[in-house]
Amino acid sequence: MDIALPLTKLIEQFARFPGVGKKSAQRLAFYILDLPDEKVKELAKVILEAKNTIHRCKICGNLTDSENCTVCSNKDRDFGTICVVEDPRDIIAFERTKEYNGVYHVLHGLLSPLDGIGPDKLTVKELLTRISTGTVNEVIMATNPTVEGEATAIYISNLLKPLGVKVTRLAYGIPVGGNLEYADEITLLRALDGRSEL
Amino acid sequence: MDIALPLTKLIEQFARFPGVGKKSAQRLAFYILDLPDEKVKELAKVILEAKNTIHRCKICGNLTDSENCTVCSNKDRDFGTICVVEDPRDIIAFERTKEYNGVYHVLHGLLSPLDGIGPDKLTVKELLTRISTGTVNEVIMATNPTVEGEATAIYISNLLKPLGVKVTRLAYGIPVGGNLEYADEITLLRALDGRSEL
Repeated sequence: MDIALPLTKLIEQFARFPGVGKKSAQRLAFYILDLPDEKVKELAKVILEAKNTIHRCKICGNLTDSENCTVCSNKDRDFGTICVVEDPRDIIAFERTKEYNGVYHVLHGLLSPLDGIGPDKLTVKELLTRISTGTVNEVIMATNPTVEGEATAIYISNLLKPLGVKVTRLAYGIPVGGNLEYADEITLLRALDGRSEL
Repeated sequence: MDIALPLTKLIEQFARFPGVGKKSAQRLAFYILDLPDEKVKELAKVILEAKNTIHRCKICGNLTDSENCTVCSNKDRDFGTICVVEDPRDIIAFERTKEYNGVYHVLHGLLSPLDGIGPDKLTVKELLTRISTGTVNEVIMATNPTVEGEATAIYISNLLKPLGVKVTRLAYGIPVGGNLEYADEITLLRALDGRSEL
């Protein structure tokens, strides 16, 4: 194939992106070449800037470019409620609801003994330290409804309960807009168990 | 939404990419943050390098980082056959066949009177100059089989025929691996017209 090397390299870079195949990578590369110079410079700058400035919040483990993340430094938030999530991108999902006003704690993973991931690899110790201040009323376990997510939620709640803090778990059920016909049995059973009076 | 600004900016940049929605943009942004520092630097470098070094080949209009493109500077290619395409990405498609050994000519567009794109906006003059050297035996019109593609092919072939050069057009027909059931009438008619003896 007689193709200019810088173009081939660019296509290769994009082909490494998650969910981007060969054809899409080519499309992205040509998109870059069609952009005005200053837009490309801006893109490269934004990429480097994000990588260089973003790190974990010292309090909750969320991603931030300052010492504490935007959630932890927002005085209007309810610091008595901590929502425990696996990953910073789960925080974005919660923030999108625009309703949750508590703070977060990012575990940066889930317990997975087979992969050698024990509690020491997660930010469990940091969570216990936060609880020990005595200002936390409720901890919402918001790990994914998978085997590892469940196991991690149960493990952490067992550690937290003796400290006298209320530990809750997200509700299971039919997703809004979902179709009963396509719901799996376990989800349906959980939806039945969690039914509420109208 | 309480989200770090450099991260929001990065997501916005990716959301502008063609075919990348909000969720995919977020996924790409987190992919960047998860990459090692040097990989991110490399990505930014490759993007800037491609944009700064890639320009049009003086002969055929293909994209290149040197004076002439890799096709035009390859002495093993057949300079007597010119394949006329709309866009440099069409060249990549032809090069992928690994069979075509002629050279190319990129029009950088198609005739479109409604959008004010006349022959002067395309590289038609450059093509005529190449033909006038007398070394070209055949010009293959390989514009897309759309209204504009057809019109452009016919327009250019009318200009070329008086110069005594053989002008051909890509064959129409059923795509390999395609399904007759789903072929449109015009394609089927063209496939019938172009049938060959077995």
